[in-house]
Amino acid sequence: MNPLPLAQALLRAESVTPARGPVFDVAEAALAAQGFHVDRFTAGEAPDGPVENLLAVRGDGGPHFAFAGHLDVVPPGEGWRGDPWSGEVRGGLLYGRGAVDMKGAVAAFIAAADRAPRIGTLSLILTGDEEGPAVHGTRALITRMAERGLKPAQCLVGEPTSARRLGDTVKIGRRGSVNIWIDVPGRQGHVAYPHLADNPIPKLVAALREIDAIELDRGNRWFQPSNIEFTDLHVGNPATNVIPAAATARLSIRFNDEQRGDDLIDRIRAIVARHAPQASVRGIVSGEAFLTEPGPLSTLVSASIERRTGLQPELSTTGGTSDARFLSKLCPVVEFGLLNATMHQVDEAVAVDDLEALTDIYADVIARALTR
Amino acid sequence: MNPLPLAQALLRAESVTPARGPVFDVAEAALAAQGFHVDRFTAGEAPDGPVENLLAVRGDGGPHFAFAGHLDVVPPGEGWRGDPWSGEVRGGLLYGRGAVDMKGAVAAFIAAADRAPRIGTLSLILTGDEEGPAVHGTRALITRMAERGLKPAQCLVGEPTSARRLGDTVKIGRRGSVNIWIDVPGRQGHVAYPHLADNPIPKLVAALREIDAIELDRGNRWFQPSNIEFTDLHVGNPATNVIPAAATARLSIRFNDEQRGDDLIDRIRAIVARHAPQASVRGIVSGEAFLTEPGPLSTLVSASIERRTGLQPELSTTGGTSDARFLSKLCPVVEFGLLNATMHQVDEAVAVDDLEALTDIYADVIARALTR
Repeated sequence: MNPLPLAQALLRAESVTPARGPVFDVAEAALAAQGFHVDRFTAGEAPDGPVENLLAVRGDGGPHFAFAGHLDVVPPGEGWRGDPWSGEVRGGLLYGRGAVDMKGAVAAFIAAADRAPRIGTLSLILTGDEEGPAVHGTRALITRMAERGLKPAQCLVGEPTSARRLGDTVKIGRRGSVNIWIDVPGRQGHVAYPHLADNPIPKLVAALREIDAIELDRGNRWFQPSNIEFTDLHVGNPATNVIPAAATARLSIRFNDEQRGDDLIDRIRAIVARHAPQASVRGIVSGEAFLTEPGPLSTLVSASIERRTGLQPELSTTGGTSDARFLSKLCPVVEFGLLNATMHQVDEAVAVDDLEALTDIYADVIARALTR
Repeated sequence: MNPLPLAQALLRAESVTPARGPVFDVAEAALAAQGFHVDRFTAGEAPDGPVENLLAVRGDGGPHFAFAGHLDVVPPGEGWRGDPWSGEVRGGLLYGRGAVDMKGAVAAFIAAADRAPRIGTLSLILTGDEEGPAVHGTRALITRMAERGLKPAQCLVGEPTSARRLGDTVKIGRRGSVNIWIDVPGRQGHVAYPHLADNPIPKLVAALREIDAIELDRGNRWFQPSNIEFTDLHVGNPATNVIPAAATARLSIRFNDEQRGDDLIDRIRAIVARHAPQASVRGIVSGEAFLTEPGPLSTLVSASIERRTGLQPELSTTGGTSDARFLSKLCPVVEFGLLNATMHQVDEAVAVDDLEALTDIYADVIARALTR
């Protein structure tokens, strides 16, 4: 099976997150034709409606290998040279929103499954909400698998991990992420009478200055140092002669496997409390850090990559979060996919040659995993 | 002459800043009837149109005493029990926007002039823009006086200086005021890739922390310490995963006569430059500090107050700015007027008894000043 026509069909099915319906119809048809049992279900009732998910399984018993991905895409934005939903090929490049992130990889994996031996168990875990809140997507799929007694031994996520050439990077972990909101209350008043007011800004500034001086860790063999970034300040006081009633800051921490999200929130809360006892500190952990230490899975995937491309991929933990953070609770998981240069950008595109090469690599990964 | 009907007529002439027309007609008629030569003129072409000013002079030669005030008022706002322009008396209180700030005092002074001896020179300096930008108001009147060769020896500003009882406070100075805007540029980026971005917030926070630690001075015999207040922070970044491109702070400094506005701007600029060389720092000096050291004028006004009320007024320099900052360049100036409890508030009101007492005090001040 050639991945290009399938990739084009997926690209032509508009599927800005949360994805539902037609794009899943395309995937289901291709999978059913190969003998996969396809289980589609919706989860959640988010503001944008329910999330659609698809769990496809072929075989029963033997080694169980899973591929995970998503069929939703980020909005195309303005400024494309062509139609972002056309799936057209120009100059050897297949254009479309999702070409690399990650309908191209989904098409490559389905095509690879077609080339793979019919032994062991092969699963596809496809969600319609990876780019959105990711609450009712892969997490619901993991619950569904548990309910059905499905437990893969290894999992590959098809996110676009390659940086300069297809095959140069495999991700074996990702940092965790937590957002924290600091609200410092005060008492409004006139700047000419500061003793009658309580200015929240100096307290917030003092807390932020102390937070800015924190060295969370120095990183380790597999991770860069954890990092705190201030992402917003807000007071919203238009009057030059008024001491404001409240001041707010927001910060984002990307952290490695030496930290835990809730501990970080507690640590920030303790600092803020010293400078502003009345302040409130709220945190939302988007995901904990995860690491699949180099071992059989990364060795297997690297071997398949080297065989096709001649490259020895770097085992990396850089970049943002992905659904691998949820899957890592299930089994060892690594991520490998297309070049990420155009992901989330206008004129997102994948080289047709890369699509074919990725299909070969995925087919080799499946063959090695199912014949262990 | 009884001040109440005149105060009512002034209150009934709506005159939210910048004031023009009818309220000046009322004042002109009352002054002309007492033999004042009335000179009305407009100045400026602000967004809200020209500012009207009135300069009234009676007599020629001898001691020259001036009264300064304004006929514009701040907007009434919502929530009044009655009509803010009704000038009605209920329970011994005269209600209306401007009752204490400061149409009541203007009426009292005009009534006092009626009771004063026709000796020396008596001036009224009335502007329609004290509550607004104050650019084309009292400053234009001072220029007009210079052009006409008029130079008072002493000046009384009728701002509402009394705190608890009429006569408890005379202001002999005011702090200066400067607002400063700090804009720190950065480079936007994703929080997962901070090395590709340049977060402006830590630089701003570091600068603000250093500014917050400044002790400008410890005050002196007549002034409280100069004070810096942060009044706003702004980034405006809705995205939790984005390092913002810019961060802004605004601060307000109220300063005594040991500081100069431009020097304060330079000092803030130097601190910010150490933490954020690319930052811009802009300042606007609303007014320099002024002080009329206790002497003949404050002694004279205090004597008139004590004679009528039995109170020995406190000589104060607290509170916000007033047009006395401009007049102090002309001659010794102090401020004395009604209770400020309801100024700028809903249901602004003056006790009719206070209006009569203030008229007596002003008449005594005029008599003492013109018979020196």
